[in-house]
Amino acid sequence: MKTPEESRRASAAEQLDEPKLDALYVTSPPNVRYLTGFTGSNGALLLYSDGRAVFFTDPRYTVQANQQVTCKVVIAKGPITKATLIEVARSKVRRVGIEHDNLTVGQFETLKKTLPVQAELVPVTGLIERLRMVKDAAEIALIRASVIGNSRALESALKRFHMGMTESDLAAEIDYKNRKFGAESPSFDTIVAAGSHAALPHAHPGAAKIGLGMLLIDMGAFRNGYASDMTRMAYVGRADAKYKRTYKAVLEAQLAAIDAIRPGALTSTVDRAARQTLKKHNLEREFVHSTGHGLGLEIHEQPRIGKKDKTKLEPGMAITVEPGVYIEGWGGIRIEDTVLVTETGCEILTPTTKELREIC
Amino acid sequence: MKTPEESRRASAAEQLDEPKLDALYVTSPPNVRYLTGFTGSNGALLLYSDGRAVFFTDPRYTVQANQQVTCKVVIAKGPITKATLIEVARSKVRRVGIEHDNLTVGQFETLKKTLPVQAELVPVTGLIERLRMVKDAAEIALIRASVIGNSRALESALKRFHMGMTESDLAAEIDYKNRKFGAESPSFDTIVAAGSHAALPHAHPGAAKIGLGMLLIDMGAFRNGYASDMTRMAYVGRADAKYKRTYKAVLEAQLAAIDAIRPGALTSTVDRAARQTLKKHNLEREFVHSTGHGLGLEIHEQPRIGKKDKTKLEPGMAITVEPGVYIEGWGGIRIEDTVLVTETGCEILTPTTKELREIC
Repeated sequence: MKTPEESRRASAAEQLDEPKLDALYVTSPPNVRYLTGFTGSNGALLLYSDGRAVFFTDPRYTVQANQQVTCKVVIAKGPITKATLIEVARSKVRRVGIEHDNLTVGQFETLKKTLPVQAELVPVTGLIERLRMVKDAAEIALIRASVIGNSRALESALKRFHMGMTESDLAAEIDYKNRKFGAESPSFDTIVAAGSHAALPHAHPGAAKIGLGMLLIDMGAFRNGYASDMTRMAYVGRADAKYKRTYKAVLEAQLAAIDAIRPGALTSTVDRAARQTLKKHNLEREFVHSTGHGLGLEIHEQPRIGKKDKTKLEPGMAITVEPGVYIEGWGGIRIEDTVLVTETGCEILTPTTKELREIC
Repeated sequence: MKTPEESRRASAAEQLDEPKLDALYVTSPPNVRYLTGFTGSNGALLLYSDGRAVFFTDPRYTVQANQQVTCKVVIAKGPITKATLIEVARSKVRRVGIEHDNLTVGQFETLKKTLPVQAELVPVTGLIERLRMVKDAAEIALIRASVIGNSRALESALKRFHMGMTESDLAAEIDYKNRKFGAESPSFDTIVAAGSHAALPHAHPGAAKIGLGMLLIDMGAFRNGYASDMTRMAYVGRADAKYKRTYKAVLEAQLAAIDAIRPGALTSTVDRAARQTLKKHNLEREFVHSTGHGLGLEIHEQPRIGKKDKTKLEPGMAITVEPGVYIEGWGGIRIEDTVLVTETGCEILTPTTKELREIC
C-alpha cells in the first residue's frame, strides 16, 4: 500500500504535464513536507514527471530524513542547490520547474549560474498548492485533531480567566494550554481583544486589563504540522441589548455561510451568504474582510472565501468561516469555525459552543 | 534630536554610494523595522541616496504607521509594489536596488514588468544587514532587556520542574514564563533534551519523561522585537564524574572564547579559542557546530563565529558564545551566553549562573 506521501507525489507528477516540465524543484517548506513527510527545516525535493523523486537535506538530518522520507534521500555536504544541480545533470532533464513564489532572486541566480547546459529553469506557481487545497484522509484526521485540541485549550484557559487580568496574560494562558495539549506552536499570534479593542480585526493583546464588556478571542495552533483556527466571543458580566443583537446577527451570517457550503458551490457564493445576511441587519459595511480561507499545513491556504473568489468547493477542502463586524469606539464581533466540505454538504469540525457566552 | 530610526536611515543612505544606487527598495521585514520602527506585517521602504525615504503599507496599518514611522507614509490601496512603482516613476530615480535574498522571483518579475522606462533594478545583498551587525544604544538596551527576561523565565520555569515531567511540558513552562514576563514569542523552538537526547544539537522536546541524568535547555524569546538566546545544563540528581569532567571542559572552552572577544579580534579567533580548549580535553571532534552568531531583530544574524569567519569584531556587536560537545548514546553539553562587544573587551549580558547545577 502506498503511503499518503507516495500518493501525493503521484498526483503531483501529473501536474507537470501541462507546463511540460520534466521535473519540479520543490523548495517551499510546506510543499516539501506535504510530498515527503519531512519535518526538518532544511529540505528540498526534485520531483520527476514519471513520479520518481529525490529528496535533499544536510547532515544534521541524516537520521530523521531516513526515518521520514520514502523516496531516495541525498545528504548534501555543501549547499542543497549544488547537490540538486548534480542530480539535474545526472538525470539529463531539460525543463525544470522552480517555485516562483518561494525561491528568492538570489537563489534563482545561483541556480542559473551553475545549471547544466541542457537544462532550463521554468518559473511556475501554485502547482502543489492547488493539490493541497483538497485534503486526503490522513490530513483530515490531523486537522480534526488540531481543531479539537484548540477548542479544549480555550475551555481550559477560560477556567483561569479572572477580571483584571491583561489581554496578554490570557493570550499566554491560551498558548500554554495548546502546548500542554500537544500542539507545537500557535498557528498565528493569538488575539485577545477586550472592549473597544475588538474593533481592530488584527488586534495585538496588550497590557490592557480585561474588565466588564466584550472579549474577542481568535486562536489556533499547529499540531503535527496542521493548523487550527477559531474565533469565539465572551461577554464579561451581563451582555447588553446591542451586544446581544449584534452577536445574533453575526451568528446568523456565519450559519448562512456554512449552509451554502457544498461540493460545486463557488467560494464567492459562501461569502455572499454571509454578506447578505449582515445587510439585512444593516451591518454589511462593518464587515470589512473576507469570509474565510483554506487551512492545512499553513494557516492561510487556498481557497480564499471572498467576494471575488470563484473557486468551486470540493469534498476534502478545509476552510474557515469567520464573518465579523467592527464598530470603532464600540468593539467587534467575529465568530469562526473550521469547516470540512463533504460529499453531501459540510461538517463543522469546531466543537466549541456558539451560544452567547457570559463569563465571571 | 534624531530618532534611532532617522540615524539608521542616514547611515543606510551612505551605503548606497558604492553600488551607485539612487534608491534602495527595502522589503525584508527586519530591515524595514530597523529603518522605520514599523512592527506590522506588511510594509516596505524606498530609501533614497540623499536620505529621504517613503514608507508603504496597507489600510489596516494606517493608524499604526502614522504612530511608528517618522518618514513619509503612503497607504497603498492595492499591492504595495504598485504604489512603490508610482513613487519610482514620480521621483525619476534610475538605479533602484532590490534585496536579492528577500524578494521572490515572482515579486521581482512583477516589479520588472511595470517598471518605469528610466529605471533599472539592481539586485544587492546584505547592505542593511551589515549595518545591523553593530547595535546602537537603543538596540543594546532592548537586547539587554530581552536577555534578562529570558534568564528570569528559566529560573521561574525550573521552579515548576519535577521528575517525570516530559521534555515538552518543561518547554511549555519556559515559553509560558517568557510570555508572562513580557516576551512576544519564542525566538526559536525551545529545546529541552534529557539524557541521551542531548546528543542531538537541535533536539525537539518530546513526550519523553525527564528522569535522573543530564538536561539541556536552549531557550530564547523576542521582546520588543529583539531576540535573546541562552543554553544552560542541569543535572537531575547527583552528577557523575564524566558529566562533571565534560561540563568543566565545555565551560573552560566557553570562557576561553569569551576571553578572546575584543574590538579588532577576528570571529575565527574566538571560534579557535573554544576549539583549542576542547582539543586539550580531547573533545574537539565532538564539537560539531560553530561557536556562535550575531543576534538582534533576528535570532541568527551576522557575524557568524565559525572556523572560517573573518569578521573583525566591533564595539556594539551582540553575539552568542555556545560551544558544545555531543556524544551519541551518552548525551551532550552546551553552554551559551549572549555577549556584547565593548570598547575595551566584552560584557556577558546573560546573568544566569554557569556553576554546575544539580536539581531535584
